[in-house]
Amino acid sequence: MPAPADRIARLRLIRSDNIGPVTYFQLLARFGSAQAAIAAIPDLAARGGGRAPRLAGKGEIEREIDAVERLGAHYLFLGQGVYPALLAELETAPPALIVKGDLSLLERMSVALVGARNASAAACRYARQLAAGLGAAQAVVVSGLARGIDSAAHDGALDTGTIAVIAGGIDVVYPPENAARQAAIAERGVLIAEQPPGVEPRARHFPYRNRIIAGLTHGTVVIEAAPRSGSLITARFATEFGREVMAVPGSPLDPRAQGCNLLIREGATLIQNAEDVLEALSPLSRRPFRQRELDYVAPGPSPDADESARRAIVALLGATPVPVDELVRQAGLAPAIVQTVLLELELAGRLERHAGGRVSLA
Amino acid sequence: MPAPADRIARLRLIRSDNIGPVTYFQLLARFGSAQAAIAAIPDLAARGGGRAPRLAGKGEIEREIDAVERLGAHYLFLGQGVYPALLAELETAPPALIVKGDLSLLERMSVALVGARNASAAACRYARQLAAGLGAAQAVVVSGLARGIDSAAHDGALDTGTIAVIAGGIDVVYPPENAARQAAIAERGVLIAEQPPGVEPRARHFPYRNRIIAGLTHGTVVIEAAPRSGSLITARFATEFGREVMAVPGSPLDPRAQGCNLLIREGATLIQNAEDVLEALSPLSRRPFRQRELDYVAPGPSPDADESARRAIVALLGATPVPVDELVRQAGLAPAIVQTVLLELELAGRLERHAGGRVSLA
Repeated sequence: MPAPADRIARLRLIRSDNIGPVTYFQLLARFGSAQAAIAAIPDLAARGGGRAPRLAGKGEIEREIDAVERLGAHYLFLGQGVYPALLAELETAPPALIVKGDLSLLERMSVALVGARNASAAACRYARQLAAGLGAAQAVVVSGLARGIDSAAHDGALDTGTIAVIAGGIDVVYPPENAARQAAIAERGVLIAEQPPGVEPRARHFPYRNRIIAGLTHGTVVIEAAPRSGSLITARFATEFGREVMAVPGSPLDPRAQGCNLLIREGATLIQNAEDVLEALSPLSRRPFRQRELDYVAPGPSPDADESARRAIVALLGATPVPVDELVRQAGLAPAIVQTVLLELELAGRLERHAGGRVSLA
Repeated sequence: MPAPADRIARLRLIRSDNIGPVTYFQLLARFGSAQAAIAAIPDLAARGGGRAPRLAGKGEIEREIDAVERLGAHYLFLGQGVYPALLAELETAPPALIVKGDLSLLERMSVALVGARNASAAACRYARQLAAGLGAAQAVVVSGLARGIDSAAHDGALDTGTIAVIAGGIDVVYPPENAARQAAIAERGVLIAEQPPGVEPRARHFPYRNRIIAGLTHGTVVIEAAPRSGSLITARFATEFGREVMAVPGSPLDPRAQGCNLLIREGATLIQNAEDVLEALSPLSRRPFRQRELDYVAPGPSPDADESARRAIVALLGATPVPVDELVRQAGLAPAIVQTVLLELELAGRLERHAGGRVSLA
C-alpha cells in the first residue's frame, strides 16, 4: 500500500531542519494542507528576504514510512485522527509521533514518574511501588525508559499500563540493558518516539523527550533528583504546561534529594504515596482539554503583509527574544499580519523561535 | 527585702486554679491592679451565680518568691517591665514567667528548633549544625530541653545564644541526664519556666511549654517528628500565632520524617539549611510587634451588667464553644458588658474558655 501523498508531504515539512512545531502548525493553518504549504514556501521565503529551506526529500520520507510499517509501529499526526489530547495542547506539540503498542492507554489519566539514573535501591523500590499503586487506581505511568527511577516506574506499572517516551528512534535501544524492557513495553504498554527510526539518541533529543513526557501527562512526580538534572527539566516543562508538579522529599543530608526538595520549596506538591498523587491530580484530571484549532481548513484568503508592515516588524526584532504578543502590540498591526511576516522571516532563515512564544532575529 | 504587695497579689491570682491567662488579663484591665481585682472577686462571682474561687494564699506565694530568689531566678510579669514582646502578643501569654540567665537574649531574633526525642543520630547532628548556623547569623535558638533534637539544638547554639523553656519548675531537671545542660543554659543562655519552683513536669504541662516555645519565637523549625508528636503541637501553635512554620523533609520511607512531610504538605516551608530558615524569617523579623493593651490603668467606671443582659448571654451559651465575637453580635450588647458577664460567670465556675477566644458553659 503506497503511502498517501498528504502523509508524505507532512513528513517532508516535519523532517526539515528549519521547520519546527510552531512553524509547521502555522503553515498548515494558513495553507490548509501540507502540499499547499510546500508549494508556497519558496515564495514566502523570498518575501522574508532569504532562500527557501531545503525540505526533506520524498524518497527519504518513503523509506522512513516503510521502516515504521515494518517495525509494526504507527504515526500519530497532530490535528489528524488519534493524537494524545493533553499533548496536543502544547504550543510545541510534536507534529508527528511514532508509536507502538496498546494505544487505548493514551485515553486514560496519566502520571509521569521521573528521577535519577543513579537512584538509590530504596528509591527504585519506592518508585516501583508508587507506580503499582497508581496503576491500581487506573492511572497510566509515563516515563523515559532511562536507568534507575524510570526503569523502576515502568516495571511497577507494566501490568496496569505504562508508556515509555524515548529520545531516539523507536527501534533504537538505549541504554543497552533495557532491550527486554523496551520490547515488553512496546508489546504490553506504549512506546513513543519523536525521531524517525534508526536515529541514535543525542544530548539535544533528551529535552525534546522530556517535554513529551510532561506534555502527555496530567502531572509529573520527581523521585530522587539532583538540582541540575533532566528530571528537573521535565518538572519545569510540566509547570510551563500548567500540569501538576509533585516531588518526593528526602533528607537534606542526601544529595539525591536536593532537586526534589528544591522543587517543593518552589511550590511543587510534596507527595509520599499514590493517594497523595491521586489527590493532587483529581482537579486536573477533571478539567476539560484546552481548545486548540486543529482543523487545517484554509481560512479564506490569507492576509498578505505589505512591505511597510514587514519593515516595521523587522525593526522591532533584535537578538533578544521578545514575545509575539508584545510585537503585535508595539507594531500596531493585525496579529495575522504579524504572524505572516514572522513565518516568512523564519522560512527565510532570519527568525528564531524560543520557549514561551518568543522570537528573535537569527 | 520583703516582696512588694503588688507582686504577691498578682501571683495569688496567677496561681489560682480557676484563673487562666485570659481571665487574669481581664481582671487587671478592669480593676487596674491585682489587689483591686482580688477585692472585687467575691462580688463578681456572686453576680455570676456561684462561689468565689479559692485564691492562692499569701504565705504560699511568699514562699514561692523566696525560692525563686534563692535560685538566682527572676520573675517577668506580662504588662510590667521586661517581658518578651512576641510572647506578649498571645491571648494566652503566661501572666508570669520565671527566668534565669542572660536576659539580653530575649531581645534578639529567635527561632524554635524542635523535634523527636528518639531522633536519628544523623538528625541530631543536623540539628546541632543548623543551630550553630542560625547562631552565627545572630539568631537565638529556642527549644524545650528534651532528649534528642531539643538537646542537640541547645548544644549547637550554646556559644551563640539559646533559650530553654521547661515544663516543670525552674529547679527541676528533666530528663535527669540533662542536669549539666540545664545548668549551662541557665548560666550562659536563658532558662524559662511557667510553673513555680519544685513542680515536677506532668503531661498537661508540655503543651503549655510548647505554646511558650512557639510564642517566644519568630518561627518554628521541626526536625524529624512523627505525625502525632509534641513537635507538631508546637508547629500548630506557631501557625495559630501567625509565626513561620518550617520543616526539614525526609524520605517517605522514614517514619520519623512523616510528621515533617505532613507539615510541608499543609503549607509549612521546606527548609534544608540555616540560609533557608533566615530567608523564611526575614519578613517576620521585620514586622512590628502587634499592639496589645498592656497598661492596666482602670478604664474609668466599669460597665455593670444588669440582670437582663446576664440572662441574655447565659441563654446564648451552651456546651459547644462559641466565639466571644459572635456572642457580642447575637446578644446585641456592648462588648464590655458581654466581657463583664463572662468574667463573672467564669469566676463563679460556670464558664470555660477555649482556644481561639471561644467560650462554653462549664
